[in-house]
Amino acid sequence: MRLVTFTTATSADPRLGALLAGDRVADLGALAAARGTELPGDLRSLIAAGPVAHAAARKLLAASSAELPDGAVRALADVTLQAPLRPGKVIGVGLNYVEHVEESSRSLDTAKELPDRPVLFSKPATAVTGPGHPILHNGNLTAQLDWECELAVVIGKTAFRVSEEDAWDHIFGYSIVNDISARDQRRSGQWFFSKGQDSYCPFGPAVVTADEIEDPLDLDLHLAVNGRTKQKGNTRDMLFRIPRLIADISSGVTLEPGDVIATGSPSGVGAGMNPPEFLRPGDIVEATIAGIGTLSNPVVDAR
Amino acid sequence: MRLVTFTTATSADPRLGALLAGDRVADLGALAAARGTELPGDLRSLIAAGPVAHAAARKLLAASSAELPDGAVRALADVTLQAPLRPGKVIGVGLNYVEHVEESSRSLDTAKELPDRPVLFSKPATAVTGPGHPILHNGNLTAQLDWECELAVVIGKTAFRVSEEDAWDHIFGYSIVNDISARDQRRSGQWFFSKGQDSYCPFGPAVVTADEIEDPLDLDLHLAVNGRTKQKGNTRDMLFRIPRLIADISSGVTLEPGDVIATGSPSGVGAGMNPPEFLRPGDIVEATIAGIGTLSNPVVDAR
Repeated sequence: MRLVTFTTATSADPRLGALLAGDRVADLGALAAARGTELPGDLRSLIAAGPVAHAAARKLLAASSAELPDGAVRALADVTLQAPLRPGKVIGVGLNYVEHVEESSRSLDTAKELPDRPVLFSKPATAVTGPGHPILHNGNLTAQLDWECELAVVIGKTAFRVSEEDAWDHIFGYSIVNDISARDQRRSGQWFFSKGQDSYCPFGPAVVTADEIEDPLDLDLHLAVNGRTKQKGNTRDMLFRIPRLIADISSGVTLEPGDVIATGSPSGVGAGMNPPEFLRPGDIVEATIAGIGTLSNPVVDAR
Repeated sequence: MRLVTFTTATSADPRLGALLAGDRVADLGALAAARGTELPGDLRSLIAAGPVAHAAARKLLAASSAELPDGAVRALADVTLQAPLRPGKVIGVGLNYVEHVEESSRSLDTAKELPDRPVLFSKPATAVTGPGHPILHNGNLTAQLDWECELAVVIGKTAFRVSEEDAWDHIFGYSIVNDISARDQRRSGQWFFSKGQDSYCPFGPAVVTADEIEDPLDLDLHLAVNGRTKQKGNTRDMLFRIPRLIADISSGVTLEPGDVIATGSPSGVGAGMNPPEFLRPGDIVEATIAGIGTLSNPVVDAR
């Protein structure tokens, strides 16, 4: 399933949906109602409801598209996608691709050596924004707004002290996070305020369930600004891979259904360019991951 | 009001309460029901419900204690206090007391100079634990578990780009956070994993509404381990005071009702002792702030 959250021109009430072939969206609530059944109304609740609920959603969608009741399907063009869910927490992983460690040590204040443990930080839920929604550029606060295309792991089942072997069982699916930073808003080295501001966590467009991603450790990542490629990488080059990240984080921090791990960014960030390049109002940033989709956001002047 | 969340021997269902004189707790839900009215069932919802709901709670409690219906009042000894609420986010402020900046630069890896902007980090909601609940000591992960007594500001009203003058209007009340750190779990300098683990944010015992704290910028702080004083300070010595913190954070990060700002710790942390002292299983840590109460937590072996 390629699960989304959407609103419509006539209702600001977010609805749980699934992308269908032919640029259409199934309204899972309407679909369930038409079949005389019920599903949790939002993606985080659906994830938390567990495998039986996930199977019920899958079964509702399995009916051939011709059979889907009319009111339950909309053209993608007729809805506005929102962030797929509001996570309890977003844990970011810094310096998780070798070449990015190198460029970061040249352009930022990080060490040249590869980290020996995952470098963890967090973004609050208030930073999350949806596909197509603006990235807020406040020129009074930053002159160094930067991008980072990252594979997002969405937790499906509570994880505390989970082994690398068992880690996969705790994943619900995958998505994209654009880990936006105001490089000049680090505070005595701490990244929270530079990475945690409103709109600094574009997320989506969909959460693709794990069964639809053949190998999450071999996915091409790509990021373009105004159509020009800035980042190009593959998740196989992660320094600490997904099972290790889940084992490491959950050694001390409980991961809950709907929590998101942003697994780090390959090289090609703006701060690492020579000369450095940063986002400006009017730019369009597109983060693409194979098998998931493209997360596109405009940068707007928000002084 | 001195608002708490409690469970009882017969029900694990958390209930919203208020501390009364004589070591008693009013059950606000039962009190409302006895008066033929209703209140939000948990503190975060009550805060978010706004001034009318707060006034209704205040009015229910204003009846003299003799008049409180029987089932609505319990002895404090008969209930188990939980964390007052589960915050959407906890934003911590590092290096916010002058003498702590100095001890930190000696014993940790922070700069000697006073920071020119608030040093911000965060703890996830999963780190929050209640008064009396264990601080988890995992000897396989840390040999440097440390304490920090801090005034917690609980946000009452959504704040985005709020001025220092208006900041006070966005505060619901005050509480205590013990900002626990595993000093040896900083990751390439980032504090998230050292400060964000489960149980590393003891919070409570009560949220005291702002009207009951005469001057939040003149409150004595005290922390003791096994009855021996380790920290002694006063909130007047904050480097960045509460209105500045709210203005600064909300310049980029929306603060929501129930969010918590842990405003920093005075000197006297374990890492700054000569030789350093850290928490061990069996220790009892008591963080006290005048006008609020004492937040006491045992340290337990959780390998």
